[in-house]
Amino acid sequence: MEVVTQILSANDQIAQENRELLESRGILAVNLMASPGAGKTSLILQTAKALAGRVRVGVIEGDIASHVDADKVAAEGIPVVQINTGGTCHLDAPMVRQALKSLPLDKIDILFVENVGNLICPVEFRLGEGLRVMIASVAEGDDKPYKYPGIFTAVDAVVINKMDLAPYVEFDLAALREAIRGLNRRAEIFEVSCRTGEGLAPWADWLEKQWRTKT
Amino acid sequence: MEVVTQILSANDQIAQENRELLESRGILAVNLMASPGAGKTSLILQTAKALAGRVRVGVIEGDIASHVDADKVAAEGIPVVQINTGGTCHLDAPMVRQALKSLPLDKIDILFVENVGNLICPVEFRLGEGLRVMIASVAEGDDKPYKYPGIFTAVDAVVINKMDLAPYVEFDLAALREAIRGLNRRAEIFEVSCRTGEGLAPWADWLEKQWRTKT
Repeated sequence: MEVVTQILSANDQIAQENRELLESRGILAVNLMASPGAGKTSLILQTAKALAGRVRVGVIEGDIASHVDADKVAAEGIPVVQINTGGTCHLDAPMVRQALKSLPLDKIDILFVENVGNLICPVEFRLGEGLRVMIASVAEGDDKPYKYPGIFTAVDAVVINKMDLAPYVEFDLAALREAIRGLNRRAEIFEVSCRTGEGLAPWADWLEKQWRTKT
Repeated sequence: MEVVTQILSANDQIAQENRELLESRGILAVNLMASPGAGKTSLILQTAKALAGRVRVGVIEGDIASHVDADKVAAEGIPVVQINTGGTCHLDAPMVRQALKSLPLDKIDILFVENVGNLICPVEFRLGEGLRVMIASVAEGDDKPYKYPGIFTAVDAVVINKMDLAPYVEFDLAALREAIRGLNRRAEIFEVSCRTGEGLAPWADWLEKQWRTKT
């Protein structure tokens, strides 16, 4: 028990240093968490497009293996660093500290940190972010807050993605919103489709406002 | 490092005891792993229907919180025990040992153990299963083997679920099959839709054959 406490404290200390560095540069970091395949990279790419000319975006990609996502981001001309955790189920603050050294921080306003696809473990590790955001995919169903309450409780915003799939799956939007509200009264909730572009403007506007307020 | 090794060994020892108990009763346990919302409970319910009259099914449901899934299974008259891990990101062998005490083992041929929704951590913990099976949801995309190679390498079968969504998402079935094969040449691959029932018969037949062979 004592060992776990010490690990978390060491991580939190480095997270605090990351946050101070980022804030001193006027950068808002967004710790983006979701299940595998919920649309984290798609949301980053679509949000960068929606914010083009207003806010400069940078990305840290976290994956156990591969650079599939970083390649997609780099192809759009967005500054990006890939972290491969080599098996670890979450990002931690030391990984992010290392990645920050390779990014052009003077050219970034909002830094998306795409966490490893996992609804559980990433929640325990602060990275130095100013916002914690999760994506809930319509394809995953409307009962996920009951099964993974920790992440729904912890985040500043829930982005419900793949709204275009709602007609083709069993999904009750009102039930999902109610379940989220039961755990988290303050989180913003957005409904989007990264495929069709539906709903992205209010999300991007909110994010820009958060950046202007917090930095 | 030494501590981690000891934890795994203790778990493996209890897993071995679970497996011996199950085999002595002629039960094949299936450790079913997948992302949140990939369709684990739906696959269990549909498979139980497909096997009705041929093989008797039992279920252990693993979730961080809630008994949503166990309620669905019990409503079909299937023996079921819910494990709530209380935050832990995977099932382990001691949890399963405890759950086995509450199941009518003399009425079960195939025991599905639905793991916590997570593509990473459950792979490290043996439960006493005879088969390890994962579900890959079409909605998650075709690139998951590159990002989560551990689970795709470890399993005896990959069930590609939600095939009915393929027309509505960007998904290349051949690319997914090739990526799976690159990591795992021996795994069986099934294409199903738990919603439409498509493809379930070959999967259920294979599972029955595994039960008859292994017990």
